[in-house]
Amino acid sequence: MKRHLISAADLSRDDAVLVLDTAEEMARVADRPIKKLPTLRGRTVVNLFFEDSTRTRISFEAAAKRLSADVINFSAKGSSVSKGESLKDTALTLEAMGADAVVIRHHGSGAPHRLATSGWIGGSVVNAGDGTHEHPTQALLDAFTMRRRLAGGEGDLAGRRITIVGDVLHSRVARSNVHLLSTLGAEVTLVAPPTLVPVGVGGWPCEVSYDLDSVIAKSDAVMMLRVQRERMNAAFFPTEREYARRYGLDGQRMARMPEHSVVMHPGPMNRGMEITAEVADSPRCTAVEQVTNGVSIRMAVLYLLLGGAEPAVSGASAAHTEAARTEAARTEEND
Amino acid sequence: MKRHLISAADLSRDDAVLVLDTAEEMARVADRPIKKLPTLRGRTVVNLFFEDSTRTRISFEAAAKRLSADVINFSAKGSSVSKGESLKDTALTLEAMGADAVVIRHHGSGAPHRLATSGWIGGSVVNAGDGTHEHPTQALLDAFTMRRRLAGGEGDLAGRRITIVGDVLHSRVARSNVHLLSTLGAEVTLVAPPTLVPVGVGGWPCEVSYDLDSVIAKSDAVMMLRVQRERMNAAFFPTEREYARRYGLDGQRMARMPEHSVVMHPGPMNRGMEITAEVADSPRCTAVEQVTNGVSIRMAVLYLLLGGAEPAVSGASAAHTEAARTEAARTEEND
Amino acid sequence: MKRHLISAADLSRDDAVLVLDTAEEMARVADRPIKKLPTLRGRTVVNLFFEDSTRTRISFEAAAKRLSADVINFSAKGSSVSKGESLKDTALTLEAMGADAVVIRHHGSGAPHRLATSGWIGGSVVNAGDGTHEHPTQALLDAFTMRRRLAGGEGDLAGRRITIVGDVLHSRVARSNVHLLSTLGAEVTLVAPPTLVPVGVGGWPCEVSYDLDSVIAKSDAVMMLRVQRERMNAAFFPTEREYARRYGLDGQRMARMPEHSVVMHPGPMNRGMEITAEVADSPRCTAVEQVTNGVSIRMAVLYLLLGGAEPAVSGASAAHTEAARTEAARTEEND
Repeated sequence: MKRHLISAADLSRDDAVLVLDTAEEMARVADRPIKKLPTLRGRTVVNLFFEDSTRTRISFEAAAKRLSADVINFSAKGSSVSKGESLKDTALTLEAMGADAVVIRHHGSGAPHRLATSGWIGGSVVNAGDGTHEHPTQALLDAFTMRRRLAGGEGDLAGRRITIVGDVLHSRVARSNVHLLSTLGAEVTLVAPPTLVPVGVGGWPCEVSYDLDSVIAKSDAVMMLRVQRERMNAAFFPTEREYARRYGLDGQRMARMPEHSVVMHPGPMNRGMEITAEVADSPRCTAVEQVTNGVSIRMAVLYLLLGGAEPAVSGASAAHTEAARTEAARTEEND
Repeated sequence: MKRHLISAADLSRDDAVLVLDTAEEMARVADRPIKKLPTLRGRTVVNLFFEDSTRTRISFEAAAKRLSADVINFSAKGSSVSKGESLKDTALTLEAMGADAVVIRHHGSGAPHRLATSGWIGGSVVNAGDGTHEHPTQALLDAFTMRRRLAGGEGDLAGRRITIVGDVLHSRVARSNVHLLSTLGAEVTLVAPPTLVPVGVGGWPCEVSYDLDSVIAKSDAVMMLRVQRERMNAAFFPTEREYARRYGLDGQRMARMPEHSVVMHPGPMNRGMEITAEVADSPRCTAVEQVTNGVSIRMAVLYLLLGGAEPAVSGASAAHTEAARTEAARTEEND
Repeated sequence: MKRHLISAADLSRDDAVLVLDTAEEMARVADRPIKKLPTLRGRTVVNLFFEDSTRTRISFEAAAKRLSADVINFSAKGSSVSKGESLKDTALTLEAMGADAVVIRHHGSGAPHRLATSGWIGGSVVNAGDGTHEHPTQALLDAFTMRRRLAGGEGDLAGRRITIVGDVLHSRVARSNVHLLSTLGAEVTLVAPPTLVPVGVGGWPCEVSYDLDSVIAKSDAVMMLRVQRERMNAAFFPTEREYARRYGLDGQRMARMPEHSVVMHPGPMNRGMEITAEVADSPRCTAVEQVTNGVSIRMAVLYLLLGGAEPAVSGASAAHTEAARTEAARTEEND
């Protein structure tokens, strides 16, 4: 794996599988008497958030703390950033303070890439969502969740049919998922109102459909995107009710899905909008598992980027998880 | 003790005494060379604050950190909660991230109860103040303070006369204190302007009086409630000056109190309003000790809810404090 | 050293050198496999910020965490402080909660001094910037940076010529630097627009000049102050362009500086205003090193105020750094 995690599109199949396998190991930390690994003691992870996102920030914070890192939260609001300090100066400051990883959330697509390729930062950059571009750890936790639900945890997603439904145009979650799932061999179909399909979608490794009912009947997983109410007008969409009728998932529609299939949602859910309460609370809906898996995935990413003695490469999975086991054993002795 | 701490009214006498006794042990941690216990290492405590309350948040944060827990602060402002996410989805998220305890402050009376009884949360819920309902750790720290000042630390409060003065109608502090003090055998009298006495007070285990001077002459402790200036109008109260004259505590009035008696205040104090600077700064006023004791009480609560091998039950006090001692000894060796 | 650090003007030469020497030891912690010392385990450092300053807050937070202290951030906004709680009650609260050090940033000149001399606080008070008064850790990190760049790290600054340029009137950085540099034997010259020179500057241990070009030709270090755009009007300064022309540093002007000399800036820089991008990014500019050094200086200050068995006095440097080495060795064994 490279030093940074900027986009799911950059991940090779081996990289992606390494993260997923490592996350399986990390998930086991939660079962230990002391739910921590000492792996990142003395390392500093900075959460640099230019957009509010308590859920994502907390998930990274929890992941870093379980690996014993020190976490510093930097909300760009009210900071000198909002007084016009450039991303460059902020980056140089964090680097100079000894940040080993900068987890960045930014409204501008491409900001994490700029941070990572600028040479301003010696540590690792992790994209926690940039504009409408990418949200790679979300795609990884989604893949992890599907692997566990559809492929017994260590199988693979090749040939699986995944449908992503909603405002694809503005969704970094959709974009990252399309890339990662295609890398893992799954077949992705996007279903969205015509005004919410990105122009360049022809070049994406996926199908597009406007007929939700026919597609979900053959889907292994249906991923419902969150509707941003404030964007519905811009999309010339008649009413929320109309949206829910055509692109929302209710119990009746879910009944057409194959029996083994799952419903996913990145959260937070608009119950009654893109998903009904009945579906949200059904055992088929993985929304809550996705949150749990998010911590394991972020632990795996931070571990692989910061913790390994050598950069993770294809085939290193066994060695890495072995290292995790050894460290775990060591802590148990010390605690 | 149960898995949650929602209201002082739920606490049995044994439960309450167990918390107070455990807090005495916790208070001794501050005297150790390294002021920490390893008890909650690897546990995650989330401070879920829907209302600003820096003091209470910091007190829980300090308590959790002294027990070596990881603390994550979740201010509901600017989070997806403020964008309309339901309490349920927030709860499921925190649960999914592995929160072992959720300390919740909420403007709505009953929110912590809903959180605890919903099944959304597998960990413990601690009420850090909900609407005008309860604030149980405040009542516990108040009882702890009175026990130390009036009953030599390990005695009891049976038969002690406690007077609570001020805006009882809106005060969760008053409500929690009435219940806990009555459980502990104390005799509580409320003194408040008639418009600020709750309608159902007839069912509470306490007396009501409108004559402050005659009551305090026989009080072991007088607890002054903070005046919320913005509520005075709603109470049709003439002026601040008039309030201070009739329901405030100044040096002259304090002089009528028995010599051994104490003045309490949950803070922050409105000097010149419900309490004069002279009284606030006198050695009789326990406001500062209450803050210190708050950390010990919150350590005890977190310890009993999360730390014990078996759920604390009546009679378990000795075993628990023994466990605390053993852990303490162990840390000293390790550090 | 005293128990508090309120102003650079209070520091004796021995005190200052002790901090600088200790910071050299602290800087080495960053090279260790686990970049932490256990020195302040169990101690609580509270960042009490009445003004936003993410950079300074993060620097103190990183420093305290590298020394293994628990850190609690207290932003005065939205707290009971903003509801009118007095500094006194806030102080008593923090003291009661067991704060071992309070790092205070306040818009009012003198607030840290009041905190330290009031008797409200038993722990140490560290001034992180108060009004237009002082910012002593900034001056210490500046001196540390100059010592490394101009005097081989352990030499001294006696006889060095330092020029401080810009809005001296409103600058606590300038004020602290003038005092500390003069204590260390350097010769300081201020260059500022006449309307931005403090009235009482005649009593300061420095020269004043209005001719930047002639002064910098003989300077070992030129420190550019940040322009607060909103204050330029108040200063009756014609235009930003005019300011940059007369008091800004560009490549051409920098070329007149002696070859060994450095350009300093406390950050964040207004590129194009007081400093051009060319100068900001040149190897002569120490802005980034200053940030790194800030963490070492703040570690040293917290260590000396809180960590030492006995208060640091002149000559104690060796013993202290020896102690640091021993503790470092001990951690390595334990981790």
